Amino acid sequence: MPKISKRGTLMPNSPIRKLVPLAEEASKKGRQVIRLNIGQPDIPTSDKALAAIRNLKATILEYSHSAGMESLRRKMVKYYERHNIHVDYEDILITTGGSEAITITLLTCLNAGDEIIVPEPFYANYYSFATSSDVKVVAISSHIENGFILPPIEEFEKKITDRTKCIIICNPNNPTGHVYSRKELEQIRDLVVKYDLFLLSDEVYREFVYDDEEFISIMQLEGIDKHAILIDSLSKRYSATGLRTGALVTRNRELRDTALKFCQARLSPPYVGQIAGEAALDSTDEYMNGVFQEYLSRRNYIVEALNKIPGVYSPVPKGAFYVMAKLPVDDAEKFAMWMLSDFEYEGKTVMFAPGAGFYTEGGIGRQEVRLAYVINVEQLKIAMKCLEEGLKAYPGRIEPVQGITSQTEATV
Amino acid sequence: MPKISKRGTLMPNSPIRKLVPLAEEASKKGRQVIRLNIGQPDIPTSDKALAAIRNLKATILEYSHSAGMESLRRKMVKYYERHNIHVDYEDILITTGGSEAITITLLTCLNAGDEIIVPEPFYANYYSFATSSDVKVVAISSHIENGFILPPIEEFEKKITDRTKCIIICNPNNPTGHVYSRKELEQIRDLVVKYDLFLLSDEVYREFVYDDEEFISIMQLEGIDKHAILIDSLSKRYSATGLRTGALVTRNRELRDTALKFCQARLSPPYVGQIAGEAALDSTDEYMNGVFQEYLSRRNYIVEALNKIPGVYSPVPKGAFYVMAKLPVDDAEKFAMWMLSDFEYEGKTVMFAPGAGFYTEGGIGRQEVRLAYVINVEQLKIAMKCLEEGLKAYPGRIEPVQGITSQTEATV
Repeated sequence: MPKISKRGTLMPNSPIRKLVPLAEEASKKGRQVIRLNIGQPDIPTSDKALAAIRNLKATILEYSHSAGMESLRRKMVKYYERHNIHVDYEDILITTGGSEAITITLLTCLNAGDEIIVPEPFYANYYSFATSSDVKVVAISSHIENGFILPPIEEFEKKITDRTKCIIICNPNNPTGHVYSRKELEQIRDLVVKYDLFLLSDEVYREFVYDDEEFISIMQLEGIDKHAILIDSLSKRYSATGLRTGALVTRNRELRDTALKFCQARLSPPYVGQIAGEAALDSTDEYMNGVFQEYLSRRNYIVEALNKIPGVYSPVPKGAFYVMAKLPVDDAEKFAMWMLSDFEYEGKTVMFAPGAGFYTEGGIGRQEVRLAYVINVEQLKIAMKCLEEGLKAYPGRIEPVQGITSQTEATV
Repeated sequence: MPKISKRGTLMPNSPIRKLVPLAEEASKKGRQVIRLNIGQPDIPTSDKALAAIRNLKATILEYSHSAGMESLRRKMVKYYERHNIHVDYEDILITTGGSEAITITLLTCLNAGDEIIVPEPFYANYYSFATSSDVKVVAISSHIENGFILPPIEEFEKKITDRTKCIIICNPNNPTGHVYSRKELEQIRDLVVKYDLFLLSDEVYREFVYDDEEFISIMQLEGIDKHAILIDSLSKRYSATGLRTGALVTRNRELRDTALKFCQARLSPPYVGQIAGEAALDSTDEYMNGVFQEYLSRRNYIVEALNKIPGVYSPVPKGAFYVMAKLPVDDAEKFAMWMLSDFEYEGKTVMFAPGAGFYTEGGIGRQEVRLAYVINVEQLKIAMKCLEEGLKAYPGRIEPVQGITSQTEATV
């Protein structure tokens, strides 16, 4: 039989691959599995988007322009203006989700063998997109013990080689919830100018920033119009992950023209996703505020609850809808599997993503998990109770590392 | 400013890129531009698909399984059974259009630098998908003069090197309309077995096969379960190109498991496209037959009309909804541009795709064009009149090559 490709073999499995069959097995046994493992919110999709779908006028679902429908792109310009991001509609290419925008950016900007620098922990699929593009990921570690603050800019600079072509940030960050300060962004800006690098910023959680943190887009920074690529998606903002409507935004015309060739090859983004996406941009303040307040309550609840569980430490995320937690266990993946295969509390158990999948090197993050607060507080309460009881019963429990407890108190 | 990648630079432009601004200009001048340049049919989308969209029940548009919704995959199994293709639902991965299925296949099966063999002329985007995957396209030429019959299998064999990993066919063929005979397919099968190659068959025009030709899928051939990859799409069949619902189908489990990792990286195919696609599979025989008869009438009309124009030769396509024609012109791209910029007949002109874009090497196909019969016969009549008058007036007209005229008579 013909051989599978090297890049196919190297493609990473999903961090929760080993958990899925166990969760299915648990469900079959009648256990309720509360899922905090992926970013699939329980919040209703914006009714503007739903109405646009149900009122579809078209009788032919046709290809749109490869760059996306002009009406959607023009409306996004106005949306960005409200967020103090000033771009022209031609700076926007509509993509099939943020995922495609990242893939097209890597193909457009990097040769095979080139390197990207990414602060870790990072969204696990960045590694997949890089692998499928034959690009090497070079990580700079941030640590849960100090709340995932960005490492000093010198750490970035040390990693730069003659193959480095791009720095990738996610702001607000998945999985850490970190929101980049102006100072951090300006340091990164100076670096990409100094070394003539591209800067890709994944800003799909822009709307979810808490505690009066200021969100700053890389599109607001001066002097990097040729370097900056904004990755966006309507999925999270309007609770419509299945729309697959994202965007690649850049003021670099050559980059955009080249990216468009990749867009033309796949003809067009989904028609209905664009119609619905355009309508979603008219979502009411009431809807948007409601969603925001809901995530805020969930965050406040889950972080407090996590830190109350003996031996658990979780820094307060300032944005997005994920929280990282360090658990008093030998190996968080083993624990996650055990929770599904061997544990239940009042007929229920909880599923979460092992932290190691968000780091490049084995070992780091081994005691960490990522929890997505995408379900309501009532359900989160049950999930936290399951976690607490599970940690008591887990045979691989170990006592937490010294120095964590005091920090825990400081963050709640 | 940082440099664009080599692969970005190498990505081909769309064959109609130079025509688009000229068409826009012509429209602004008040000329009606009849578009035969792309495969965007004027036929209404299956009303089953439209109804499913308008009756959308979901209140959260969520991620589906990365392999696609199980209900859609199971329904496709039944659809395939009706076409004597027997697969399991697990053999089917739902993709964002056939385009994504091809890209994922190339990434899964070929290393950078590997080669694919493709009979030309071929669907221009195969070249783009190969370029974006760092794969080399090796073409075997078929010729309009003998109706694009497949070259002898020895021609394929001559092109095989130690980097050859895959043969790609499109059946029924875009752009030629060729429908592969059993003998041709069996020869190709024997070759992929002998050299241990993958065989990718793009069969999205399966429903559009005319004149009692027999359509045979590679999934019906014995002995190549580990080699065969079927590429499918609901776009053409149900006149819903904007759905972006395609499929990668293979009985090779390792291939499928590897392809699934690429699917997981981009999370899921579009939700609404899958709901609508599943409904479309229930399209009535009346709808399907109506569409078929419509394309058949159009084909019969356009081929006859083309061959009646002095100096034009067009072999009868046996499938799909495109026709290639050889024109008595110096350069078909120049002619196509001139038709938009300099010509009108009763306020109208016609747009078509220059043939050279469907061949790898400069020169071949320079006098050819591809016309998509995706508009009704009334409009086609006007288009053919414009073409005829345009050819009379075009300053770069040259007399047709000897030997074409006699064949023209034989094919109509």
